[in-house]
Amino acid sequence: MKERLYLFDTTLRDGQQTPGIDFSVEDKAAIARLLDDFGMDYVEGGYPGANPTDTAFFSEKRTRAAKFVAFGMTKRVGVSASNDPGIAALMQARSDAVCYVAKSWDYHVRVALGCTEEENLDAIRASVEAARAAGKEPMVDCEHFFDGFKANPAYALACARAAFEAGARWVVLCDTNGGTQPAEIRAIVGKVIAAGIPGENLGIHAHDDTGQAVANSLAAAEAGVRQIQGTLNGIGERCGNANLITLIPTLMLKPAYAERFELGISAEQLAGISRLSRAFDELLNRAPEPQAPYVGVSAFATKAGIHASALAKDPATYEHVPPETVGNRRRVMVSDQGGKANFLAELKRRGIDVPKDDHRLDALVAVVKEREAEGYAYEGADASFELLARKMLSGIPEFFAVTSFRCMVERRFDANGHVKTVSEAIVKLLVDGEERMSVAEGHGPVNALDVALRKDLGRYQAEIADLELADYKVRILNGGTEAITRVLIESHDGTGARWWTVGVSDNIIDASFQALMDSIVYKLMKNREMAGLVAAE
Amino acid sequence: MKERLYLFDTTLRDGQQTPGIDFSVEDKAAIARLLDDFGMDYVEGGYPGANPTDTAFFSEKRTRAAKFVAFGMTKRVGVSASNDPGIAALMQARSDAVCYVAKSWDYHVRVALGCTEEENLDAIRASVEAARAAGKEPMVDCEHFFDGFKANPAYALACARAAFEAGARWVVLCDTNGGTQPAEIRAIVGKVIAAGIPGENLGIHAHDDTGQAVANSLAAAEAGVRQIQGTLNGIGERCGNANLITLIPTLMLKPAYAERFELGISAEQLAGISRLSRAFDELLNRAPEPQAPYVGVSAFATKAGIHASALAKDPATYEHVPPETVGNRRRVMVSDQGGKANFLAELKRRGIDVPKDDHRLDALVAVVKEREAEGYAYEGADASFELLARKMLSGIPEFFAVTSFRCMVERRFDANGHVKTVSEAIVKLLVDGEERMSVAEGHGPVNALDVALRKDLGRYQAEIADLELADYKVRILNGGTEAITRVLIESHDGTGARWWTVGVSDNIIDASFQALMDSIVYKLMKNREMAGLVAAE
Repeated sequence: MKERLYLFDTTLRDGQQTPGIDFSVEDKAAIARLLDDFGMDYVEGGYPGANPTDTAFFSEKRTRAAKFVAFGMTKRVGVSASNDPGIAALMQARSDAVCYVAKSWDYHVRVALGCTEEENLDAIRASVEAARAAGKEPMVDCEHFFDGFKANPAYALACARAAFEAGARWVVLCDTNGGTQPAEIRAIVGKVIAAGIPGENLGIHAHDDTGQAVANSLAAAEAGVRQIQGTLNGIGERCGNANLITLIPTLMLKPAYAERFELGISAEQLAGISRLSRAFDELLNRAPEPQAPYVGVSAFATKAGIHASALAKDPATYEHVPPETVGNRRRVMVSDQGGKANFLAELKRRGIDVPKDDHRLDALVAVVKEREAEGYAYEGADASFELLARKMLSGIPEFFAVTSFRCMVERRFDANGHVKTVSEAIVKLLVDGEERMSVAEGHGPVNALDVALRKDLGRYQAEIADLELADYKVRILNGGTEAITRVLIESHDGTGARWWTVGVSDNIIDASFQALMDSIVYKLMKNREMAGLVAAE
Repeated sequence: MKERLYLFDTTLRDGQQTPGIDFSVEDKAAIARLLDDFGMDYVEGGYPGANPTDTAFFSEKRTRAAKFVAFGMTKRVGVSASNDPGIAALMQARSDAVCYVAKSWDYHVRVALGCTEEENLDAIRASVEAARAAGKEPMVDCEHFFDGFKANPAYALACARAAFEAGARWVVLCDTNGGTQPAEIRAIVGKVIAAGIPGENLGIHAHDDTGQAVANSLAAAEAGVRQIQGTLNGIGERCGNANLITLIPTLMLKPAYAERFELGISAEQLAGISRLSRAFDELLNRAPEPQAPYVGVSAFATKAGIHASALAKDPATYEHVPPETVGNRRRVMVSDQGGKANFLAELKRRGIDVPKDDHRLDALVAVVKEREAEGYAYEGADASFELLARKMLSGIPEFFAVTSFRCMVERRFDANGHVKTVSEAIVKLLVDGEERMSVAEGHGPVNALDVALRKDLGRYQAEIADLELADYKVRILNGGTEAITRVLIESHDGTGARWWTVGVSDNIIDASFQALMDSIVYKLMKNREMAGLVAAE
């Protein structure tokens, strides 16, 4: 009989403390969906009442399976829970659960809260009871628990006990400053359980200030806690929180944990963890860490000649887990064996059947590898990949051709002395041998180009009326303002279909143009495919 | 009486296995100097005989205080040590010590070496003896030791014992595949010591495949080993090696280790560890990891308003170690989550003193909040923040004014029918009342604008000669091609100073222009401050 271990994701709350990270309501909604689909037990969404973004985010429930958690402080001393506006914001939030943060270090109670130790215990109890009365699952983050326990074990325990006895489902022991070592975590968790708070009601919240947030979380689980808090890719304040992307495979694949615990995540979901990690980085518009455990592009790469040849003989003895269990793959840097099989599978998934020994397939593999070396990222641009594959394998019609374009941005003072920036684009294209010229203004040169390009496509114009750009992303791949730029564009249309296209150039306008063109051509091709008209074209 | 723990750096050997990293002889010499000066006990330089770089590197001794170590394989089966060219290369290398890698997993002896278990033991013994005879300190890396021990403890132990009994100063237990958990490390090290190989002759070599290389190294030290192998910033094959930059402060500052062990590193040297870490990244030409434990720019940063005000009262209770012990510093981030206390602390650090109740401070807080709501991110753009603060609090001179600019991107077919994209920018500006006009081409419109803007600043031109753009980042804050765009620019100059500036607009050219302007103005202001000339301007 395995014991159930619960995963509590705090990417949207503690992760928001990461320097340089700011989530919009739309970002939060997208991330909550990723977490929910992946199988997290709890998704903490933020601190309603603390800022407009979080308040708006909690105006509706954002998860289906996962419990949706609102974070906030315990009630203020001197007012009742029912008169505390912070508690009111928490109760109004459309969450399933409430996670209160409570001081558990006597020093902070005196200095930061400025109240008596007993008043703090009362606040914990009253806050937990308020959540229960509102039908929400209550939990309490005991801030500075380990430092507090070292300074005054009786008081730290009294805080945890107050939470537990008032009915908190979870009492979470937080290593807020992040400096506690695994052996200390293990010893203190043992003492808390010995003092009467059962492990099945305890959680751990670790930070990575000594590079041991993962080890601390595992040490706590070994010692008896049954909830682990962490974030996607380990984002968080200072050095980050415990990295759930690292912890989950270890818990599910390492016998020491897998034989003892079970999570709410299936083997199939685990195989999606590399994708989850990359999708999150994509959302943050940052490059994934190549050396990340399990999911990094280098996590199963080998460069050493001696290892590479032995690896070919028997990969299992050179890999601590099979890469496919986490949706990653082996990379032998001398000769990449997995390439062609991956392509065949990808093409088949798109309904393109091609024999394994077709020379056009080899040509496609070579072109994709060459382009990816230049900066194209076809993993994130399925429509551009499909267009390229169809072009090389079966051909696609040339609907129209852009013969030239010009973009102009001018910033100057207008007649009233106000600074004014104007962007304008002119596009010349050929449709059915006839030249058409369009001009448009826009918010910036890329928008102007986009508008001009879609202004007059002749007999195709009606077909792209429902084409809309949903997202536009830019990543600078290296160096300064002369750097290689990658543009990713997400498009959708009236049928609800969504597709992604990519462009790469040392010129952002040129990169954007490639991705815009691919999006339009993909839409025209898709229309024909749906109407079964490809042959007739 | 503290026990001495030895540090063995393998940045130049195992670190070279990192995908994307290739050291030249000059790189290696520079890194060896950094390591030597910092106080490492052993510096492993590479594998002489394996490639021309490493052979050249070992043509002279590269350290003064640290022992300089050559890495290589134990002698081949079937030849004597004196007839083995690999051993000969090791003996000729100008090193103080030799680190042999030896198989210790019976499976690999059979499959990879294809010899008998006894022949492998003989090779270990003969190789150690050859090093001793040559007057070099011998050590043996037992490859796959932990996996080997789990499969066949008797044979793994026999390998370690063969090395020890032949006179190896160090027998290093390697977690080659990186999947072993801390509790397993602790248990197996205990068994090795119980089997008669003293802890003072044992080392640990851990990899980060489950994010626990640091925890595994510490667990091994707790269990008795007295040598720790690792790399600068944790570089290495796959997910990297144990990060010495994280381990060293933990060993020296955390009571559990500091009370028990001593290293060959002084408190003064420890205070240079942030500089060491950044100097190494500089050499690799990569951006430092902001969230790195102890040394990252965010390691002692706080963004939360509640924490920031408590932090000001008593930093010790919010920081697990004092930042100055590792040569780092506290950072209170300016952000829409922070309050007035954040601002005062940030301004003070920049030498801007303003009374807490000055109404200009309230105005500054309001403007920053308003701009951050528009998309500016001042926490990542310290120079733009400082410029804004000085403008509002004390004023800064208007060095020059841009009256207008125009950027143009044209894509067309050239005379030979090839597509050609040209970018051009024209900038008009006033310096000392005189109009200057510059034009430039570039890789893309932003680069053209950058070049034109810095082409002729009149009497300021000489001052910005050493200004260089190090990085350019674009973030689309919402929606499609008409979206709000945030540009961050990192600049540096000949003094080694680095600064970040930000621009926000629905026009990427405009956003880039703002960030470029801030960078130039910041540089001019900084020059004056350094020369004490602000008042004279």
